[in-house]
Amino acid sequence: MKTYKALEKQFRRISAVNGALAMLGWDQSTMMPEGGARARSEQIATLSVLRHEWITDARLGDQLNEAATQTDKLDDWQRANLREMQRQWRHATALTPKLVEARSKATMACEMVWRKARRDDDFKAFARAFLPVLELTREVAAAKSAAFGLGAYDALLDEYEPGGRSASIDKLFADLGSFLPDFIDRALVKQGKRPAPLPLPGPFPTEAQREVGLKLMKALGFDFNRGRLDVSLHPFTGGIPDDVRITTRYSEDDFTKALMGVLHETGHALYELGLPKVWRDQPVGEARGMVLHESQSLLVEMQVCRGAEFLKFAAPLLRKAFKGGGEAWSEANLLRIYARVKPDLIRVDADEVTYPAHVMLRYRLEQAMLHDHLPLDDLPYAWNDGMQTLLGVDVPSYAQGCMQDIHWAVGSIGYFPTYTLGALSAAQLFAAAKTQDGGILPGIAKGDFKPLLRWLRANVHAKGARLTTDELLREATGKPLSTAAFKAHLKARYLS
Amino acid sequence: MKTYKALEKQFRRISAVNGALAMLGWDQSTMMPEGGARARSEQIATLSVLRHEWITDARLGDQLNEAATQTDKLDDWQRANLREMQRQWRHATALTPKLVEARSKATMACEMVWRKARRDDDFKAFARAFLPVLELTREVAAAKSAAFGLGAYDALLDEYEPGGRSASIDKLFADLGSFLPDFIDRALVKQGKRPAPLPLPGPFPTEAQREVGLKLMKALGFDFNRGRLDVSLHPFTGGIPDDVRITTRYSEDDFTKALMGVLHETGHALYELGLPKVWRDQPVGEARGMVLHESQSLLVEMQVCRGAEFLKFAAPLLRKAFKGGGEAWSEANLLRIYARVKPDLIRVDADEVTYPAHVMLRYRLEQAMLHDHLPLDDLPYAWNDGMQTLLGVDVPSYAQGCMQDIHWAVGSIGYFPTYTLGALSAAQLFAAAKTQDGGILPGIAKGDFKPLLRWLRANVHAKGARLTTDELLREATGKPLSTAAFKAHLKARYLS
Repeated sequence: MKTYKALEKQFRRISAVNGALAMLGWDQSTMMPEGGARARSEQIATLSVLRHEWITDARLGDQLNEAATQTDKLDDWQRANLREMQRQWRHATALTPKLVEARSKATMACEMVWRKARRDDDFKAFARAFLPVLELTREVAAAKSAAFGLGAYDALLDEYEPGGRSASIDKLFADLGSFLPDFIDRALVKQGKRPAPLPLPGPFPTEAQREVGLKLMKALGFDFNRGRLDVSLHPFTGGIPDDVRITTRYSEDDFTKALMGVLHETGHALYELGLPKVWRDQPVGEARGMVLHESQSLLVEMQVCRGAEFLKFAAPLLRKAFKGGGEAWSEANLLRIYARVKPDLIRVDADEVTYPAHVMLRYRLEQAMLHDHLPLDDLPYAWNDGMQTLLGVDVPSYAQGCMQDIHWAVGSIGYFPTYTLGALSAAQLFAAAKTQDGGILPGIAKGDFKPLLRWLRANVHAKGARLTTDELLREATGKPLSTAAFKAHLKARYLS
Repeated sequence: MKTYKALEKQFRRISAVNGALAMLGWDQSTMMPEGGARARSEQIATLSVLRHEWITDARLGDQLNEAATQTDKLDDWQRANLREMQRQWRHATALTPKLVEARSKATMACEMVWRKARRDDDFKAFARAFLPVLELTREVAAAKSAAFGLGAYDALLDEYEPGGRSASIDKLFADLGSFLPDFIDRALVKQGKRPAPLPLPGPFPTEAQREVGLKLMKALGFDFNRGRLDVSLHPFTGGIPDDVRITTRYSEDDFTKALMGVLHETGHALYELGLPKVWRDQPVGEARGMVLHESQSLLVEMQVCRGAEFLKFAAPLLRKAFKGGGEAWSEANLLRIYARVKPDLIRVDADEVTYPAHVMLRYRLEQAMLHDHLPLDDLPYAWNDGMQTLLGVDVPSYAQGCMQDIHWAVGSIGYFPTYTLGALSAAQLFAAAKTQDGGILPGIAKGDFKPLLRWLRANVHAKGARLTTDELLREATGKPLSTAAFKAHLKARYLS
C-alpha cells in the first residue's frame, strides 16, 4: 500500500505538469500573440521532456513492479489506476529518449512545412518533410510493437485508443463498407424528392452567435464555474476536468457551423466535467480514450443536436437570437439544413453519412504507408482513386485531397479510425440511453437535458478509465460495439 | 567557457519554467474560472518546487564556482550573466527546503485569511494568521543575513532590489521627510486658489475605454505582436518579454483611473518589451529590479501622462472616444483632475505628492516589526498615529489602515520602499532624458513618443540586468540617485 501511495503521489506531480501543458497549449491557440511563439515552444518542450523523464524514471518502474505484487490490498479503482500507470509507463519507456526527440523535431518541422505546402498546394514539399516523419513513425511502431507484442499499427493505435485493435476495426469497417455505398445512394434519392433547404439570410453578429452558443451549452449542462468558451482557428476542447476550455470559430455569414461546433465540443467537455472527482490527478480519473471521447461529442452533436427533438427546442431560441422568421427558420427547414447529405471532399465538413468513407480511406492508406506497401509518391493517386470509388467525387487539388488533414504531418498514424468508432459508439450509447430512460427524448424537446446527462454521467463519464472501452460499452448497452445502432440511426433519420 | 555554456543551458530551462509560471499566473487572474483554482495551485506549486530544485542543485553550485575561476574568457555581458546566476543561486540556497515550504504554506494561508479579514475589518483574525508569516520572514531574513553578510532588512530588500540598502534609503527618505510635509501644505494652498476640477459626466462604456486605452498603448510604443491588454481585479503586468500581458479594471462611472492604470502598466510593459533580445532566457536579460521597474511605470504615468504635453495630445482623443465637449473636457480641466493632491487613506489611490508618506510609514513599521520592536497588537495604533502625523488623516478602520495592502500578508517585507525609489528614479531619468534630447517633450505633445522610447531603450531597457541600479542611474543621468529631480518636478507641477 505504501508503494502504491508513493505512485499516486508521483502521478499527481505528472498530472500537474500535464495540466500546465494543457493550459499553455490552450493559451497558444486562443490568446497568445505571435511574438510569444518561440518562448512558448521552449516552455512546452521543457515541460514535455520533464514529464518524459519523470514517467520513465527507473525508480518509478521498480515501484510499479513492486506494487504489482501487492494488488490484493487494493480496491477495484486502485487496481485499475495501477494498470493505467503501467500503461503510461510502458508507452513512455518503449521509446528511447533519442527517438522521442527525433520524432518531436521532425513532426514540428513537418507541421510547419505542411501549413505552407497546403496553402501552396505543393505535394512535393510536403512529401519531403513527411518522409522522415513516416520513417520515425515506423521506428516508433516497431519499438512499441516489440515492447507490447502487438502488430505495428495496433501498437500506434493503442496510444489513442487503449486496447483498440485493427482486427476488430477491420470487421466493423467491412460491415460499414458493404452498407454505406448503397445507403448513400438511397439517402440522396430520398433527399432529392424533398424540397431543398431554404437559405438562412445573414449576417449573424458574432456576439449574438456567442450568446446563443453559451445559452445552449448551459442548457446541456456545461458548468461555467469550471470552463469557458473562446475562439480559435481550429475548434478544440482543451484544459483539464475542473477547467475545460472549448473553442469555436465564427463566420458572420453562417451561424450553423460555429453553433454545431460549439455543441460538438460541449459533448467532449461534458465528458471531462463528469470524470470521477475523487480520482482527479490520477490516470484512472482520466477519459478512457479517443473512441469514447469522440462518442461523447458525436452523441451530443449528431445523435442529439441534429435531431428533430433538439431542433424543436432550439428553433425558437435561434429565431429570437437572430431575429429570424418565416419558413426558412422553421424546425423543418433547420432539420433539412442540419441533416443534409452531400458526398464531398473535406472530412471535417462531412455529414455523418459520408464521414465514415473519409475515415475508411485514411485507415487503409495509413496502414499501407506504415507497412511500406504504398510509396509516398503514389499517395495522391491512391487518395484520388479512393475518393472517386467511395464517394464519387473528383479531387481537384492536393490541398483538398491527401494534404487536407494535420494528422499524418504530425505523425498521428492510428488516430483516424477513432472518429468512426466514436460515431458507432455514440449511436449505440444513445439507443441504449433512450431505451433505459423514456424521459430522455421528451426532455430534449423541452430543453431539459438532465435525464440525458444523468445517464451519460452514470454510464460513461463517471467511469473514468476504470473499464476498457469494450467493457464500458458492454456494461452500458449490454452488447459489444457493432454497426447495428449506427445503421438503424441512419435509416431512421435519412430514409423515413 | 564550456562550464559557462552549460550554465546558460541550465538557466534557459529555468527560464522556461519561469515563463510557464508567469503564464499560469496571468491566466489565473484573467481567464480561469473559479473551479480551476485547486488544480492551478497544484500546477504552480509543482513547477515552483521544481524550479527551486533546479536552482539549488549541488552540481549547479559546483559549476558556478568553476565558472567563477574562468571569467577571463567571458565578455562583459557574460560576466554579468554569471554574477546574476550566482545571485539567484545564493538567494535560493540560503534557505532550507523546509523553510521555503513552511513560508509558502503560511503565506498562502495568511493571504486567504487577509482577504476575508479585510472584508470583515477583523484585525485579530488577520494578526493570528500573520504572526507565523512574520516569524518565518524573520527566519528567512536571518538565514539570508548570515549567508550574504547583510543586515536582516537589507537581506530581504535585496530580493526585490538587488544591491538596495537601507542606509541609502534612510538618507533619501530623511530628505523627503523634511521636504514633503511643508510642500504638501503649500501645494494644497495653491490648489485651493485654483478652480476645483469639473466632473466628467459618464457613463463610459467599457468598450470605448478599452479602445482608447489600446490607442494610447500603441502610440506609446506597445507592440501588440508581443503582448495583450486584458481585465483583472487588480491591475498588473505579467507574462514574459516577448509576450507581455497587462491588465486593468474598468468602471463605467469613471474612465480616468482605468486609463491611467493602463498607461502605468504600459510603462512596465515597455521595459519588458525593450529588454535585450540576445539575452532572452538568461538572468542578465531580465529587468534589473523593482526600483527600475517601478521607475518605468511611474515615468510613463506620473512624469509623462499626467503632464500638460501628454494631455494636450490625449484630450482630443478622449473627447472623441467619449463624445465629450465643453470646459470639463478641456486640457486644463483634465490636468486638474490628473494632478489633484489629496492626503487620504489608501496608498494605491494616492497622488504622487502624498504617496511617499504612505511608503515611509510602511518602511518604518515593517522594519520595527521585523526587528521585534513593535508588537503586532500595537501595529494599528502605530499606523493610525503615523497617518495622522504624516498626512493629517484619521484612520476609521483596519481595512482602510494597516490591513489595506497584500504585501505583509504574503511575507513581502522590504518591497514597499521600491515604490518611492522608483518615483525618485523616474523623475531623475525623465529630467536627464529631456535635457539630452530636446525633441522628447515636443514629441509627446504631438503624440510622437519615439524620441522618449528611443532614450529609454538605450539608457534603461536594453541594459537588462548588466549594471546595478546605481550604475545604470549614474550612466544614464550622470548622478547617483537623489531627491533633487523629484522635488524639482513636484515644484514645477504643483507650485507654478
